[in-house]
Amino acid sequence: MSRFAFEFDKLVIAGVGLIGGSLAQALARAHPAGRIVGIGRSEAPLRRALELGVVHEAALLDDAPALARALGGADLVVLAAPVAQTHTVLAALAPWLDAGALLTDAGSTKCDVVSAARAALGARIARFVPAHPIAGREASGVDAALPNLYAGRSVIVCPLPENEATGVARIRALWEAAGARVCMMAPEAHDRTFAAVSHLPHLLSFAYMEQLLDAPDAAARMALAGTGFRDFTRLAGSSPEMWRDICMANRTALLDELDRYGAVLATLRQAVAQGDGARLEHTFARARAARENWATAREARAATDTE
Amino acid sequence: MSRFAFEFDKLVIAGVGLIGGSLAQALARAHPAGRIVGIGRSEAPLRRALELGVVHEAALLDDAPALARALGGADLVVLAAPVAQTHTVLAALAPWLDAGALLTDAGSTKCDVVSAARAALGARIARFVPAHPIAGREASGVDAALPNLYAGRSVIVCPLPENEATGVARIRALWEAAGARVCMMAPEAHDRTFAAVSHLPHLLSFAYMEQLLDAPDAAARMALAGTGFRDFTRLAGSSPEMWRDICMANRTALLDELDRYGAVLATLRQAVAQGDGARLEHTFARARAARENWATAREARAATDTE
Repeated sequence: MSRFAFEFDKLVIAGVGLIGGSLAQALARAHPAGRIVGIGRSEAPLRRALELGVVHEAALLDDAPALARALGGADLVVLAAPVAQTHTVLAALAPWLDAGALLTDAGSTKCDVVSAARAALGARIARFVPAHPIAGREASGVDAALPNLYAGRSVIVCPLPENEATGVARIRALWEAAGARVCMMAPEAHDRTFAAVSHLPHLLSFAYMEQLLDAPDAAARMALAGTGFRDFTRLAGSSPEMWRDICMANRTALLDELDRYGAVLATLRQAVAQGDGARLEHTFARARAARENWATAREARAATDTE
Repeated sequence: MSRFAFEFDKLVIAGVGLIGGSLAQALARAHPAGRIVGIGRSEAPLRRALELGVVHEAALLDDAPALARALGGADLVVLAAPVAQTHTVLAALAPWLDAGALLTDAGSTKCDVVSAARAALGARIARFVPAHPIAGREASGVDAALPNLYAGRSVIVCPLPENEATGVARIRALWEAAGARVCMMAPEAHDRTFAAVSHLPHLLSFAYMEQLLDAPDAAARMALAGTGFRDFTRLAGSSPEMWRDICMANRTALLDELDRYGAVLATLRQAVAQGDGARLEHTFARARAARENWATAREARAATDTE
């Protein structure tokens, strides 16, 4: 499963859901001798993670003595909680972190995570190397965790000016051990990129469902919708809480993309209103060519990954 | 394959591509004794349809003697050409139609097709029963035709005031023989419905690709796009010519949907800008619930169809 050896003494995963649980499973395969501890806000998911053997030990976030035990001797800490909880979780962990502990996260936005981490960690920010794995499933929770969730997927590592090169290299090795393809990017560039390729499409898909539901005959209309509708609205089936948090966290970049989208839509509206078919066809053809190139490149990359 | 007996002496399909070819194959299974003739604008696709056995005979649209032979004794004529060609094709067929011939079409828009058909057919409009099968594939052309393309799919039949009940019933039976589920709708209601559930999502997906391509680092951004991007942009891989024609043909209804979409987007933009997470979450949750209900109903219907 994993393509690189990666060793650790004790790995702490704060948030043992789909993302954290899958990483725990992948790293357990890479290094079966390592100890893995789960930390969470409530008992039930931690108990389930223990039952499934995803973690060896567990501790509640509001139980200081248990936290102290969990973090004692931990050389790696992965934050895999919703991005809006970054400050709360890191502030709870901070007093108990070993000096040698290296931290990373798995949040979908980076500038807000970095800002929350700076506030919670103070000078220890030098030991926090932010990351974002581009992976997921429709199902969530530790029951949905898969040891190969990150195999062949991209992980963006966003080093901070305070990070040491050895720490960055170790976090890179961690994700590569889970089978991922790591690329480096500044947090600001990351947030602009994902506002464009992920956050905006989610918002547009949610907005489309909202508009459709406003029609008095919405149910009759939807009953006639086909496969195009199915694909276009799949993103509107995503978690409302998670996407609320992402839209709030990456507000600046998202608004910029949204305004640029509005300008393109206004131009196309004008072409439709004026009966400018040539203009529409030109735009549609450019879009299709780019979409086909993307799909071809993606297939080629997938073929390389399985070789 | 087909659930109902359906007989015909001679079926003429004008436009033997994916849509027309699939219908020819489905009806040949329903009534192997019937004769099927293909009509087209160019030789190569007709020759291919003959090779594949999709039609028994073929005639070019600009060959009047061949058209006369093709339409002599034809009791059914299906127009399966792009909607923008409706007037040209029907005007070419009109002089040779038998008095008893019943006509239908397979276009994605209906008001413009009806208007073109009225102009081309004159009093014979009473024998034209418009229809729209909700089916397709990414591949096109007669080589992509499948006899079960319409199995379990919806077909909207849009009767005109001039149509006789027996003619409408026969066109309904034709699509049911191909395995489809027929529903009746006025042309105006059809066009408003499909502007909402199909034409708008296509335009939004094309617009999204256009916006993304405008960014100077478009290629780098797209290289990091994942499965959400894949689903959201699938519609932007559709035929530019076909979607130009549909946007032009259904302009009024499409502009209305587009303006309502713009209003929803403006409200969500304001919520993002103001940091109104509760408003976003409410909208996202409503969208997700509707999307999930739709998917559940669709699965239930698919299960019924295969029983």
